[in-house]
Amino acid sequence: MLAAREGVEVLIFGPADRIGEVCEGVTVVDSPVSIAKSPEPAAAARSTPDASIVRAAKAVAEGRADALVSAGSTGAALAAGLFNIKRAHGIYRPALAIPLPMPEHPVTLLDVGANADVRPEHLVQFAFMGAALVTMRQGIARPRVGLLSNGTEATRGNELVLETHRLLAERASQTFGLEFVGNVEGTQVANGIADVIVADGFTGNITLKLIEGVSQRLMNVIRDRASSSTRGKVGGILLRPSLRGLRDELDPEGPGGAYLLGLRKLGIIPHGRFTRTGFSNAIRAAAQGVDEDVVGRTIAAMDAAGALRRPPSDAVATVPSS
Amino acid sequence: MLAAREGVEVLIFGPADRIGEVCEGVTVVDSPVSIAKSPEPAAAARSTPDASIVRAAKAVAEGRADALVSAGSTGAALAAGLFNIKRAHGIYRPALAIPLPMPEHPVTLLDVGANADVRPEHLVQFAFMGAALVTMRQGIARPRVGLLSNGTEATRGNELVLETHRLLAERASQTFGLEFVGNVEGTQVANGIADVIVADGFTGNITLKLIEGVSQRLMNVIRDRASSSTRGKVGGILLRPSLRGLRDELDPEGPGGAYLLGLRKLGIIPHGRFTRTGFSNAIRAAAQGVDEDVVGRTIAAMDAAGALRRPPSDAVATVPSS
Repeated sequence: MLAAREGVEVLIFGPADRIGEVCEGVTVVDSPVSIAKSPEPAAAARSTPDASIVRAAKAVAEGRADALVSAGSTGAALAAGLFNIKRAHGIYRPALAIPLPMPEHPVTLLDVGANADVRPEHLVQFAFMGAALVTMRQGIARPRVGLLSNGTEATRGNELVLETHRLLAERASQTFGLEFVGNVEGTQVANGIADVIVADGFTGNITLKLIEGVSQRLMNVIRDRASSSTRGKVGGILLRPSLRGLRDELDPEGPGGAYLLGLRKLGIIPHGRFTRTGFSNAIRAAAQGVDEDVVGRTIAAMDAAGALRRPPSDAVATVPSS
Repeated sequence: MLAAREGVEVLIFGPADRIGEVCEGVTVVDSPVSIAKSPEPAAAARSTPDASIVRAAKAVAEGRADALVSAGSTGAALAAGLFNIKRAHGIYRPALAIPLPMPEHPVTLLDVGANADVRPEHLVQFAFMGAALVTMRQGIARPRVGLLSNGTEATRGNELVLETHRLLAERASQTFGLEFVGNVEGTQVANGIADVIVADGFTGNITLKLIEGVSQRLMNVIRDRASSSTRGKVGGILLRPSLRGLRDELDPEGPGGAYLLGLRKLGIIPHGRFTRTGFSNAIRAAAQGVDEDVVGRTIAAMDAAGALRRPPSDAVATVPSS
């Protein structure tokens, strides 16, 4: 309820008897049905209109709320968003974009899990979507966009990345929306070479979770080894003030989750294992995204860059005439 | 030349005038032609019989040397190995397997870059290849093998991983060669949940380089912040003995590079930017792999597990009869 105390009005869809007392600014809409544990979230979101995530998505679609913050499974939130809030015009696929929890060089990675299998034109749109978000959030007029690959050369990549590279190199030279810096390899993700990194949702999800897992593991190993001797313990205590900020910078809960971009309204998808801090940050990010009109400005920027899907009339023109 | 001092006989294929004096046990075979910088390494390896990597691969193929250690581009080494040393019988695709540079839980990851695009049956073979290597190197009778994915549930993954999961679950229950632990997500890679992790070469390469990049970056940030105050500096000095081993454990040069498995002879592929330490470790790993008959025993273990490609007669039987 930290977010509510800052003036954000919050509608909670969930089991009223388990939520209990809430503070001012928070309204509980009793929705005891959950599909968070469903093995088939897309099917469940279609067939369970009473599910709390579906009711929340409908409230956003109908204008009773301005943004969707999920608290359960990402798959269910995606499906509920797609079916109810619906894709924005000109968007092939919504994507999940997240500021990476790494110190010093802010990097936004997308897609971190909305689409496990994509086509090159989807990745091209993700590049422009991510660039528009970073322009708004960080004030960078022409963000540097890199394509995650297994080598920096344009000849490196799987078939998907090779074709996407070709398309992005072609498109980026014709627009001011982004600067395409080419392929970015694993060692470069954390070193500030790009403001936005584009990947399919399978690779992007693995990347995000690897960064979380490796930093967590390393911090724990350092802590454990430091506390294995008195000398180390004293060293650790002396170091603490210098490193105070670091754990926060590495905390996946810091940004509050991923921006779900490409729907007609904004979604924020925190990780299901977040604590109250992460969920508060998610609600704050949603409120700020609404104030800044992230959705409208993303679509406008993509339109200006010619990155929206062409209307069907164009497609028809490419069909052979007989 | 550290490896030579330990009794390994080394043939170096390279420009004799630039290599200069060598110690006992090392023979330089003057090969001034290099394809290390070729943008099309496969084509260059085919069309440049004089290239040092091609001559080295031929020496291995012809029995003048027992294993190949590359010192240039991975692509050129792969192509030279494939064309000259050739695939072992029953192997679809060679793969690069590497012990991950993470502390405490040894994990072997493959493929880290030999095959950017693969089919499910290739990944199934990688699983058995990696398991055989770990059985030999670590003495684990039935290694736990995980499939790198964007979630732990069997329903998570891209199309490639979903199908591979199905095949592995089916195969692993019929064999003692490995224990299939299912999907492994990014956060779990470093936490010891599996002895072997299988991925396509695109995802595996990104994973390996991310681990290197994130740990390097984190260690540098900690060092920089510690040295920003006197208190921090003293803390860092006191901590140093406890953390002495950690930088070594995180050092990508430690294992000497990746095992190139699936050819008729062993290959070790260090990273091109390794220092002499890394190359010495690579030569040592190659010599040890030859002593342990890694190639012969990998194929034997895969044969015992029924993981080798079936002879063509089986394939013919599946062709419709008319």
